[in-house]
Amino acid sequence: MSEWKNLDTLESFRELKSQTPVDLAEEMAGENGKKRVESYSVPMACGMTYNYAAKAVNDDILDNLKQLALEQDLPGKFKELYNGGVVNTGEKRLVLHHLTRSQLGDDVICDGVNKREFYKEQQQRIADFANKVHNGEIVNENGEKFTTVAQIGIGGSDLGPRAMYIALQNWAKKNGLMKMEAHFISNVDPDDASTVLSDIDVARTIFILVSKSGTTLETLTNMAFVEDALKKEGLDPSRHMIAVTSETSPLAKSDDFIEAFYMDDYIGGRYSSTSAVGGAVLSLAFGPDVFASFLDGAAQEDRTALETDPLKNPAMLDALIGVYERNVLGFPTTAILPYSQALSRFPAHLQQLDMESNGKSVNRFGEALSYKTGPVIFGEPGTNGQHSFYQLLHQGTNVIPLQFIAFKKSQLKNDVTIEGSTSQQKLLANVAAQIVAFACGKNDDNPNKSFEGRRPSSIIIADEVNPETLGALLSHYENKVMFQGFLWNVNSFDQEGVQLGKTLAKRVLAGDMDGALKAYSEALEI
Amino acid sequence: MSEWKNLDTLESFRELKSQTPVDLAEEMAGENGKKRVESYSVPMACGMTYNYAAKAVNDDILDNLKQLALEQDLPGKFKELYNGGVVNTGEKRLVLHHLTRSQLGDDVICDGVNKREFYKEQQQRIADFANKVHNGEIVNENGEKFTTVAQIGIGGSDLGPRAMYIALQNWAKKNGLMKMEAHFISNVDPDDASTVLSDIDVARTIFILVSKSGTTLETLTNMAFVEDALKKEGLDPSRHMIAVTSETSPLAKSDDFIEAFYMDDYIGGRYSSTSAVGGAVLSLAFGPDVFASFLDGAAQEDRTALETDPLKNPAMLDALIGVYERNVLGFPTTAILPYSQALSRFPAHLQQLDMESNGKSVNRFGEALSYKTGPVIFGEPGTNGQHSFYQLLHQGTNVIPLQFIAFKKSQLKNDVTIEGSTSQQKLLANVAAQIVAFACGKNDDNPNKSFEGRRPSSIIIADEVNPETLGALLSHYENKVMFQGFLWNVNSFDQEGVQLGKTLAKRVLAGDMDGALKAYSEALEI
Repeated sequence: MSEWKNLDTLESFRELKSQTPVDLAEEMAGENGKKRVESYSVPMACGMTYNYAAKAVNDDILDNLKQLALEQDLPGKFKELYNGGVVNTGEKRLVLHHLTRSQLGDDVICDGVNKREFYKEQQQRIADFANKVHNGEIVNENGEKFTTVAQIGIGGSDLGPRAMYIALQNWAKKNGLMKMEAHFISNVDPDDASTVLSDIDVARTIFILVSKSGTTLETLTNMAFVEDALKKEGLDPSRHMIAVTSETSPLAKSDDFIEAFYMDDYIGGRYSSTSAVGGAVLSLAFGPDVFASFLDGAAQEDRTALETDPLKNPAMLDALIGVYERNVLGFPTTAILPYSQALSRFPAHLQQLDMESNGKSVNRFGEALSYKTGPVIFGEPGTNGQHSFYQLLHQGTNVIPLQFIAFKKSQLKNDVTIEGSTSQQKLLANVAAQIVAFACGKNDDNPNKSFEGRRPSSIIIADEVNPETLGALLSHYENKVMFQGFLWNVNSFDQEGVQLGKTLAKRVLAGDMDGALKAYSEALEI
Repeated sequence: MSEWKNLDTLESFRELKSQTPVDLAEEMAGENGKKRVESYSVPMACGMTYNYAAKAVNDDILDNLKQLALEQDLPGKFKELYNGGVVNTGEKRLVLHHLTRSQLGDDVICDGVNKREFYKEQQQRIADFANKVHNGEIVNENGEKFTTVAQIGIGGSDLGPRAMYIALQNWAKKNGLMKMEAHFISNVDPDDASTVLSDIDVARTIFILVSKSGTTLETLTNMAFVEDALKKEGLDPSRHMIAVTSETSPLAKSDDFIEAFYMDDYIGGRYSSTSAVGGAVLSLAFGPDVFASFLDGAAQEDRTALETDPLKNPAMLDALIGVYERNVLGFPTTAILPYSQALSRFPAHLQQLDMESNGKSVNRFGEALSYKTGPVIFGEPGTNGQHSFYQLLHQGTNVIPLQFIAFKKSQLKNDVTIEGSTSQQKLLANVAAQIVAFACGKNDDNPNKSFEGRRPSSIIIADEVNPETLGALLSHYENKVMFQGFLWNVNSFDQEGVQLGKTLAKRVLAGDMDGALKAYSEALEI
């Protein structure tokens, strides 16, 4: 068993703090820059690469980071996790999202159930169901084929599946694999559900209600919203709705659904894209084979995270460099910048994944920490961001570490050549240019046009956004966040910080309030 | 004329730094909290309110902020700006976006033109054009009515108009004012244009090409993309496209367009939503009267920014509190949290507005600054964010100041009552609850369930998202950013930080590169 230690108790961390910082502008200039790009690179799964040439590290710092990984026993902690250790100590739960896509270690038997088999079984049940919907065996109560799927969920039951759907939509169209259009209802703002309902043919839509506990206020409210809409069209809601929930939830054995598919307490919402939560909507939208490929990409990338040499393990190395930036260099924010319109909502998913996992101030034993943990994560696709917030990234008073993601090919392969280059070439030229501009900067006699440079970035390069690379990308970030949680010694798998607001909201709705809460309620005319 | 001084040279700023910080949890508890909510509130235009009860200020600090505003002469600097001073010193330009919606001071005559009249004339030309499209006087080359509008632009020519369109779409539908559906093409990623083109009836779409200079790479590339698509359908692109540009741009007198509408160099892209840039697409989508109401809301809010008492001027007060948080309390990031699905892309617009304006390291004279300027801005709509990154906001190791925005009514007025409350009531109960949870926190024997509180927030409360309130909201943030720029003594109206990347991208495309740039180009197989 690994020992769980605070970052600042580690000898290698103290050494890391005493390392001379790298002058990135100098390192990345001339031939040395070229060498760095060629050597500071780790292969990922599915032909992808993690390149960290433009990060503020050198061989000494990397060696130190390697020691840090080993002293904190990142490989051992990961092993404990995937072999079914109670790593989510706060809630006393196992952490099993890796099992939804592969068997990395021993069988995990819990409550008498082989959990890998359980997740596979759910995936198979979903596949069978989706096939029956697609071939017309399962139809609506008027005997018509379902054409549309709409997911009702919030947070982890929304952001991941939605980002993945958006990412694969064009790929599926291009490859003739688009089975059903998907929509998503999440916000308790009634305009959200109303808008989606007015955009779809309600009678020919399968609604997926996703709530692990079966008690999420927003989701149950939106379920009622949808049931209302179905009833208004003279339809029986239970013939138009399926559930994804835990077997112990009030939704599990309900007559309100055509069918229920299961996840369990060992998969956190933000880690559930590869479980039934992502499985139902993605299998219905694109077919079970596409979802299986997505799982396969994630499984392949998971295996790269098993590598015990941190410099050959892309997720571990990414995590280590991030901790160096956060706890030694002192940078409070990280930007995720995919140069792909398909990944337009991927940063929003990573924002949840990272900030909800590692935005903690106590360690896994509940002791206050005296160092910084998870940074703020934000991002928009490039090149759009270049014409927006990049100004601050280049010339602002804070250094923001950057994570670029780029794909050699577009999804639709529809392109034009203007001034001797295609749009795809322009897109890629821009990402290459930005990395160098951020790292090297430029002196100018006009200080307003000077660039300090020394703004670190990494880039993940892949062939195209497809189910495999998307699964691998998702796995990379899940594992990065996990390794960072290990480094900071926090529990990345609970989210107690969201509870207080819920409790107070209930008090407002019950009219049980005073002081500021009452005054705000009056100001808002609730 | 105002004197332009660095923040840290001001006596009132030195005093501000010596103020005893407020214990927000204590201040917001019990009856005192109620009093704060009732008194720390400033009326805005259109029945809106800016409430800052949950900000970490008290009467002493507010008094000090008032002195700071007067010592830095914020009212005088604003006056200089709207009366046509060359406030954008870097580019030696006037800053005239306020004139697109009102005449706040003297006539501004520039190059022999009364600029207010010029902007009004463009607005009238757009109104006439939009009316002719709506009533069928202007039709496509097959003699059919145009049903759709698609804007081609990036950065300021995209984010603002797009966010405004999304914000008003449901309101327009509800009120029978939806004239044409709008789409937006921005990214040079070829999949962006391809996706939009496959979603619309190209023959019945008016495309709006928006580029002030007429030279933006992404926009010209996407124009060619669209022209290609039109030609493939046997159509003449010049019969399907209008331009919004400056009179001196290569697009201005081109035969490629049905018509061109003008903006000028005195309106920065990120401040152009109330100019022809927002005017063309919003007038076509919703009719000129809706756009006029939007301008009217902005004009009304602009007038609240004229108030010389900082404590009665919502934008100025918001700016001052932000600078206190950034430069005295040391918070590096600000979150924008609209509790309205209609404002789903409003944070992305504010991200550009704020970060591109004030993400600067030199003052307006080009001298390096020794204090922090613009923060990182990010945000997503509530309640969605509550199930995502709020964990870090509540329990993370950095304090992130929050800006809530809430509306008493939904747009579509379609709602359900569950457990005794409507969705709209649940939405509002949540925002009230969050403010109090963030400010007051909660002690718990389990440190994992403890909330430190003391996380400051403000809230803007309005009746509903409609053209007037949206215009007022936009004006509020534009003026807040402007006042912060004055406080930091930076030029908020240029964006030299985006140039270096452009230059390097051109070198890549021209094959004129070496070192790291060449190595990345090879890795990306450009």
